[in-house]
Order: sequence, then C-alpha cells, then structure tokens
Amino acid sequence: MSRRVCALALPVFCALFTNCATLAPRASAGPTTADYLDAASRIVGREMVDGQAFARLRYLTDHIGPRLSGSPQANLAVEWAVKRFTEDGIVARAERVMAPHWVRGDESAAILAPASQRLHAVALGGSIPTPTGGITGQVVEVSSFDELHALGDRVKGKIVLYNKAMTREGEFTAPGSGTGYGAVVPMRHGGAIEAAKQGAVGALIRSLGTADYRLPHTGAMAYDDNVTKIPFAAITAEDAELIHRLLEDGGPVTVSYALGCQTLPDVPSANVVAEIVGSEKPDEVVVIGGHLDSWDLGTGAIDDGAGCAIVMEAMRLIHVLDLKPRRTIRAVLFMNEENGLAGGKAYATDHRSELAKHVAAIESDSGAARPVGFGISGGAGAEERVREIASLVKSFGAGDVKKGGGGADISPMRDAGVPFLSLRQEGTHYFDYHHTPADTLDKVDPFELSQNAAAMAVMAYVLADMPDTLARQEPESPTRASK
Amino acid sequence: MSRRVCALALPVFCALFTNCATLAPRASAGPTTADYLDAASRIVGREMVDGQAFARLRYLTDHIGPRLSGSPQANLAVEWAVKRFTEDGIVARAERVMAPHWVRGDESAAILAPASQRLHAVALGGSIPTPTGGITGQVVEVSSFDELHALGDRVKGKIVLYNKAMTREGEFTAPGSGTGYGAVVPMRHGGAIEAAKQGAVGALIRSLGTADYRLPHTGAMAYDDNVTKIPFAAITAEDAELIHRLLEDGGPVTVSYALGCQTLPDVPSANVVAEIVGSEKPDEVVVIGGHLDSWDLGTGAIDDGAGCAIVMEAMRLIHVLDLKPRRTIRAVLFMNEENGLAGGKAYATDHRSELAKHVAAIESDSGAARPVGFGISGGAGAEERVREIASLVKSFGAGDVKKGGGGADISPMRDAGVPFLSLRQEGTHYFDYHHTPADTLDKVDPFELSQNAAAMAVMAYVLADMPDTLARQEPESPTRASK
Repeated sequence: MSRRVCALALPVFCALFTNCATLAPRASAGPTTADYLDAASRIVGREMVDGQAFARLRYLTDHIGPRLSGSPQANLAVEWAVKRFTEDGIVARAERVMAPHWVRGDESAAILAPASQRLHAVALGGSIPTPTGGITGQVVEVSSFDELHALGDRVKGKIVLYNKAMTREGEFTAPGSGTGYGAVVPMRHGGAIEAAKQGAVGALIRSLGTADYRLPHTGAMAYDDNVTKIPFAAITAEDAELIHRLLEDGGPVTVSYALGCQTLPDVPSANVVAEIVGSEKPDEVVVIGGHLDSWDLGTGAIDDGAGCAIVMEAMRLIHVLDLKPRRTIRAVLFMNEENGLAGGKAYATDHRSELAKHVAAIESDSGAARPVGFGISGGAGAEERVREIASLVKSFGAGDVKKGGGGADISPMRDAGVPFLSLRQEGTHYFDYHHTPADTLDKVDPFELSQNAAAMAVMAYVLADMPDTLARQEPESPTRASK
Repeated sequence: MSRRVCALALPVFCALFTNCATLAPRASAGPTTADYLDAASRIVGREMVDGQAFARLRYLTDHIGPRLSGSPQANLAVEWAVKRFTEDGIVARAERVMAPHWVRGDESAAILAPASQRLHAVALGGSIPTPTGGITGQVVEVSSFDELHALGDRVKGKIVLYNKAMTREGEFTAPGSGTGYGAVVPMRHGGAIEAAKQGAVGALIRSLGTADYRLPHTGAMAYDDNVTKIPFAAITAEDAELIHRLLEDGGPVTVSYALGCQTLPDVPSANVVAEIVGSEKPDEVVVIGGHLDSWDLGTGAIDDGAGCAIVMEAMRLIHVLDLKPRRTIRAVLFMNEENGLAGGKAYATDHRSELAKHVAAIESDSGAARPVGFGISGGAGAEERVREIASLVKSFGAGDVKKGGGGADISPMRDAGVPFLSLRQEGTHYFDYHHTPADTLDKVDPFELSQNAAAMAVMAYVLADMPDTLARQEPESPTRASK
C-alpha cells in the first residue's frame, strides 16, 4: 500500500479514538507521522487483535521464574528466548557474556535490645557474607551521606542504618534527583563504602520502595577495593521505622544479622540478539532492548520480563506484518542488568565497530503499566522528531515525550553518540513491587503490556524506516542514568 | 453537673459538628442520649486532647512484639498490661489460663514440576509438622468443599490446594457469608480434616487476604481426632495463581513443603482483668474486651493490639474523668483468641456464677481503622437502645448500628444470654495485613485509634450507668461468629 494514501485515512483513524482530535491535531503531526499512519495502524490493530506479549511474559515468569545472572534459570531464559524468536520466524542468536554469579544463601536479622524483634532483611546483591553466626552491633541511623560524614568517628564499630523514606513519584527518577528512587538509590549503591570509610562494621538500608507490606527490596550495591568490605542488607520500611522509634526512646539499639551470600566465579552466559535485517541500509541499526536477568526474590515480571516481552512482541509484529524497514531492527535481551551490567558492556564492546551506524537504541525497563511515552537523548531536533513519531500512539496515551532517554543496558553505547530512547511506563506502583518477591505475573495487565509492545514497535519501525535519522548525542548530553 | 442541664448543651454540641443536625436529629436521639450528652462530650473531648491509646499500642508492639500464646512475649504482655492498668489507677489482676503452646519452626515450600519455583508458605497455627525433608505430591486444586467432595478418591495420595480468592468487603464477614473473610475461613478451619477424609497426604490454602504483596497469611485450623492429621499451610495468592495456571497447562503439578512446627505442652498464661467498680450495682457488669495474644508473624498491631489499646484507654478515660458508673465496667484482655480461645473459655467458666448479671459484653477485634459503629445481639429493643447510645458518637462516624454483635473471646458467654456488642471498624484494608508480617504499628492512625477508644468508652459507660439494661439474648439469637 502506498504511503500517500494513508493521509486520507487519518479522519477515519481519528474517529475511532474520541480523544484523537484534541491530542493529535493534524497540524502538529508533521510529515513523518502522516507517512507512517498506515503502518502504525496495522501494528496497533494487530496487537490489539492478536497480541502475544503476555503469553511470552507468562512463560518466562511461570515456567522459568527468577533469572539472577549465573543461575540455571538465567541460562534457560537465554535458550528459550532464542528458540522463541526463531519460532516466530526471526533470526536470533546468543552472544556470549561472562556474568557474575552471586548467590543469596540463608539470611536472618533481629533487634536484640532494647526489645527482641525479628527484622525482615535481604542481602543486597554483591554483598559479602557475614561471619557464620552473623555480626552484632549498635545502630547509628542516618538519612543521608552528609549526616553520616558529620558523625565522623562515632560510626566506628557500629552498624549504620540508612533510613530515608522513598517518595512515591509517577515515574522512575534518575540517581541524584531529589525525589523518588533517584533520591535514595545512591545510598544503596555506595552505602557500604561510605560507612566502612568511617569504621562501621556493617550497614543496613531501609528498602527502596513505596508500599507498606513488610517486604525487603534487594538491589545492587558496590564495593571499593581500597575500602574495607562490610556486609550490606536491606530491611523493610516497617523495621527501619521500628529502629527509628526505639532510638528515639533514647537508649542504644542493638541488632544482629547474618548473611550467607557468596560471590562465585563468573560463568558463561549470553545476550540474546535477534534481527529484522534492513531492506536498504542493513548496516544501520535501531536497537530495542530489555533485560533478561532478574533479581532472585520474585519472578521478574515487571523488572524486566515485561521489557523482554515488549521487545519480542514488537519484533514479531513488524515481522508478521511484513513491514520490511529500510534499516535493521535489532532486539537485544541483555544479561546481567541487575548486578553488573555485563551484557550491556559486552554488547557495546563486541559491536564497537558498528556503533557509529547505530541510529537509535530504545530500552524498556520501567515495568509493564500502560505506556505514557518516550524519553529521548539525542542531538538537535531529535526530541521534536520523536515527538512527531510518538503522536502516532498518542491515542492510547503513549504520546508524551520528555528530554532524557536511555537505560542501563544501552548506556555503554553513549560514547558513540547513539541516540537513546526510553519507553516510559506509568510508574505509580512500580516501586511497590520492584526487587521484591511480589514482582510476579499478576502485577501485569495483558492489555497494558500489549499497548507497550505496540508503542515500541511503532517507534522502532519508524526510526528504522524514515528517510533521515535522529541527530546523534553529544558526549555531554543528558542521559537517563543506570538503575 | 446535673444531667438535666445537658439537654441544653445539645445545640452547642451540634454546632461543633456540621453533620450532627442531619445525622442525629433531636427527635431520634431519645432520652438516654440526652442524659449522657455531657458525659460523652467529656470522654470524647478528653481523648482528643489527651489521648494515650496509641502510646499503649506502641509499647505493646514495639517493645513486646508478637505475642503468640505460650511465647515469652505473651507473658510479658500480661505483666505489662497489669502494670499499665495499675499505673493508670485502675485495679487489675492476671487470671490464670492454661494456653496452648504451638511454635512455628523452619518452613519452606516449592513447586518441583513442571517448573521449579519457590513458594512462600507458612504453617497454619496448630498444624502438625511434615516429616523431616517435607512431603512431596501432586496438587489437586479445589475452590470449595463441594468440589473436593465431588472428587472422591481422586484426592488420595495427593496434596489438596484450596484456591478461592477472597473478595474485599468493607467489614468483617461471618463464617458462612458468601463474601469476604466469611466465605473462605471455613476452608482454612476445616480444610485439613476434609482433605484427609478423602485420603490426601497434605493440604495447602490460598492465603485469606486481599492484597497482592506475596504475603502468606497464617491463621487457625482444626483437626478431628478421628481423622488422620495432615500438615496444612497457607501459600500466597500469587503462588496459588501460579499453580492454577500451571494446572491449566494440562500437566500434573508437583509441590513439596516442609513444616517444622511443633505443639508443645500447654503453659500457664493469663487473661488480664481490670475493673472500675460500680457505685450502685457493683455486681452488674459490662465487659469490654480485646485479645492480648497475636499471631507470630507481625507484631499484632491491628489484630488485636488495637483492641487492647482501645479497651485500656476507654478504662483510663472513664477513670480520670471520675465518671463513677452505677454498674461495674470490667476490661478483659483475653489470652489465646487466635489459636484456641482458652482465655475466652476460661473467663466464661471461672465467672459462670456472675454471668447472669453481666449486662453486656463488647469486643473490639476488627482492627484500628476509624470506628463505624456497633453490632448488637440482644433481646427485644436492644438494637434500638444501642442505636440511641451510638448516636452520641455519630458525629465522628461511629453511629451506625447493625444487628449481630459479639466476638470470639466473649462468645463462650452466649449461653448465659449476655447481650453482645462489637465495636466495628472500617475494614477495607484490614485483610490486606491480617495474620501477616505486615501487621505492624505503622498501619494504625493514632487519631482513628483514639476515636475507637472514645466510642468504646461512651458505649461502655452509658450501658453501665443507664437506669435499665439491654434485653438479654435468646439462646438462638444470631451472634457474630468467631474469627
């Protein structure tokens, strides 16, 4: 079908969506949008009628389950994804990645004085274990690194508790933001290092989350080889508040915790890479990605089984509709986003010579709730072009475009100037479940997941097919930071 | 102050509460209400200005913690409550009760086939342990006893999963109700017996709860000495849904679970009893009660630390205001409501000779959210009298009166015809937390708890002081059934 005909179809399309007239007026849609109205309609329509995103996610979470890097399930997920792409008729391969292999083991924690209370704790990913029998010490509570630093020597021999409540935002916020996840994640990342510098023997952190169901949230943390390594665990918000109240009573609070986690030797694992090769410019590539690994506590449905399902389904849609984009669309299901970024680094290294012709990279790693739009980090005019393209999915709410795009897995490609996009999901409840045992399939609405797959497919297809490409990032342009 | 003067104060009182004019018109208030307007105003005003209910609850949950019958903490709670009443100037004593001593031990569960997945399980209270290493078997899923019975021999050698989602209601529903807790609690209570009768080797139940945070909810269960005892555990809603989906795929689902729980010999424990002795009729008694024990997973803040705090605070209010009711008001903080009702039974037995002069018993055991009113089970006219009294607390929403009152702890007094009341709390979120680790202090709003204490104090005081008493229950009158 000629693309020119599509402009005539616009009023019909709009009539199907009552808010279309106000949300996507013809005047602002621009020529790009008009040219791709037919393709977008076919993609969205096919997904609404024959969506298979949820079925993909269901298999990954129900039949494979948690997929922490190095686990047997992570490797099962690689095998399954290659097979699944292949069965969909899309050429796919596993690209080797050496992945960290950290295992949790048994863990326990308690307040010993002034009351005897069980604490609900989980080791942060990468933590060293405690000695057998655990460590015991008095708690020093801080709500920021500034507070910690001001305490100087008074932390020596103590257990530092980072206790700052995370605020509920509608979306992911980048590290260093004053609100939401971004305001607290630096304490989880660097908390063991900073506490150890001042002589602490252990560290605990109030879980980075927004619900009140006594769930500890795990996540990644870092050590510095020049600083003593101390064991670092997350406790629930309820437990942090309990310690806070007991400290307010005036006396010392003594806690004990035992972590049986271990870091084993790295193991061979893989990114899964699948391609729809471009019809005119096969060496120009649009990457779309999510991450295949997950934390070990839940089944990684929203983080980031959803991203994988969205990417797999976007590929299937473009393939079954025989859309044949001019450029290559390459799906990458990255390994080890959660605790090391080995997959993202390996991809950028192994494909270094191709990156100058990577025309965009889109990551989906903010859950499975309805899409609200895209973030974009690119050169001059890129934001406006993305906004035009996103207007094609404005009718189901995915048309909002914000400056600042990317994702942890694609971040190693930044030096090469690859324009970065994020597919953004509504995030009010994302951090209720993030990195907890409750990150399970039931948190995902199949229709919302399909909306995401359709939005991803439309954006990827237009970027891969439009006559020109997005202006590339300058080295210093803002990018969505890693999780 | 003469009670007659109080009628003059009504318009002033009403002016303070904008909805009073419509909610509590003078015409329906009746003489009882008018006579007690001053006392009610003093009670409510004092609690709003000098409320100490939350401080009571804080100590009980933060410093003592979980209080399962037989535990050291249960005995600490008894000691503390006697001391606390005494310090408030109210005569109190511990009345011996022999309590069950069931302990949880380690527990674990997993799906072994067709996928390998961890299950989040907790033993139900009173369950026998599994053999060391656990039991393994194929799952048979049912959503009712009728479905189970229809399966006949096909359950033999299998593990029965009771999987019926609990609906969210605004309030506690009695066993046998078609909705909410009442619709599912009979399966938890009798599930091991019914499954074993058909030859099952184990039983699991979808947690009786209304949230989706992968929290298993414990609770009481029963055995029949004439039926083989099988180990019985609750799994999370998420895990039950996972098993359901895997069964839908067609193949058998194999699970394994290990419970290390034990029933130890009964131990001496106690109800805590405190009294404000009646000025004219000391042998006529209004009992107000909650239960001091809790499940072991959380700190028993909403179930039923709140009830204890409400009762303790109601006593303190009546005492400090020097209201001197004609009849005795007796607070009873019962032991062992959760897994045996030993305290409720012991009270009814030990005070058998006094029950004919127990003029009412009020229980608070539905949480700590704002009071919505009272339930009443009494003789002719009792409901109308309670409605009149409750109109005194209508201004803060506690004026609704429903037929059917009581509570598990006071239920053994039913034969004696004691009129039963429940203080009813708003219950939308009660079963999100009930019997889970997340039943903690932060779930309680101090002001709402104070409203409950004030409502309890007003009802107890008026019942203890009014010229006549409520008509007694007939043996067959409906009563709120046990939890």
